[in-house]
Amino acid sequence: MLRPDYPAAIKTLIAELKRMPGVGPRSAERIALWMMQSRDARSLQIAAAIREVNESVRPCSSCGFFTTETLCAFCADQGRDASQICVVEQPTEMLSIERTGVFRGRYHALGGRISPLDHVGPEDLRIDALIERIKTETPAEIILALGSDVEGEATANFLAELLRELGVSVTRLAQGLPAGGGLEHADELTLSRALSGRTRVK
Amino acid sequence: MLRPDYPAAIKTLIAELKRMPGVGPRSAERIALWMMQSRDARSLQIAAAIREVNESVRPCSSCGFFTTETLCAFCADQGRDASQICVVEQPTEMLSIERTGVFRGRYHALGGRISPLDHVGPEDLRIDALIERIKTETPAEIILALGSDVEGEATANFLAELLRELGVSVTRLAQGLPAGGGLEHADELTLSRALSGRTRVK
Repeated sequence: MLRPDYPAAIKTLIAELKRMPGVGPRSAERIALWMMQSRDARSLQIAAAIREVNESVRPCSSCGFFTTETLCAFCADQGRDASQICVVEQPTEMLSIERTGVFRGRYHALGGRISPLDHVGPEDLRIDALIERIKTETPAEIILALGSDVEGEATANFLAELLRELGVSVTRLAQGLPAGGGLEHADELTLSRALSGRTRVK
Repeated sequence: MLRPDYPAAIKTLIAELKRMPGVGPRSAERIALWMMQSRDARSLQIAAAIREVNESVRPCSSCGFFTTETLCAFCADQGRDASQICVVEQPTEMLSIERTGVFRGRYHALGGRISPLDHVGPEDLRIDALIERIKTETPAEIILALGSDVEGEATANFLAELLRELGVSVTRLAQGLPAGGGLEHADELTLSRALSGRTRVK
């Protein structure tokens, strides 16, 4: 006996929605049914918004952030300090750093990090564009704001080696205890890095 | 100072995604960024699937289930027992009942339930279509598979009253302890209904 089920179009929609990060089979079904049952054109608005982003948003030709113009809001802002370039893995991380309010320089997104297991090598990252920018914009300092995991470390070491020849000062984010974290929650590696990176009390 | 942010198209997309059930602001942002960063045309496939469902899927003219034809898979199946019509609130609930494997009759979705607080009255439900079907298909039994909450009860009582005049037998789903649930987890109302609906041990 063939058991009745949703029409193929709905099953396709559920399968497509299930690919989105954080959306499981149950949520995908729930969203699909909501899309069919909401009486207004809400789901078509979502489809239109997806298409609009696909058509109009592209990476900034300089730093790799999202923009609908040639240059993004960061790069178009002449008021930002051109003597510092903060290198991040993903463009979204620029906004995280921006929220701290302590950085007024420029950014550069690599678009990922060196990870042999995921078949991502230096040639897959926006490293050539970074070198080009360093030659053109002649910043005094490159801040490597990369993760403190194995791939982040590897990428940072690779870049530090490479940029040394360009005569630019290369720094990294400090590693240590996270704010509000007691010693009992810190793992050994974090603690050892916090120790070796200890700073003098004024 | 104007702080750099995502382009408007991305912010619109995030706002649209946030409307989907179970998707909060964080998930919406994560999905939007995933859509921009996935290198293939995956997000366009989602947009296409949404449009496809919007254009091709409609309610079955008889029972209200989803279909791309005039009649749905349930109603087109001549092998199903026409002497029973199981009335549910939402078409999705047909699949839940179908999964039990104990019902082989026909279905009818009301498209909601009577709920004065949400401005849903009997005239907003597919009740006329149900009466029409009872007159045409002359089933022996109407099973009201409605929820056991206040609105479900109200809708069931309203329908029972209305259908009595049509000379059809009207039944309701049993209420009592859920399978696998101990007495200590049952609330007073469930327990009192389980008691008053007790069945003789064979």
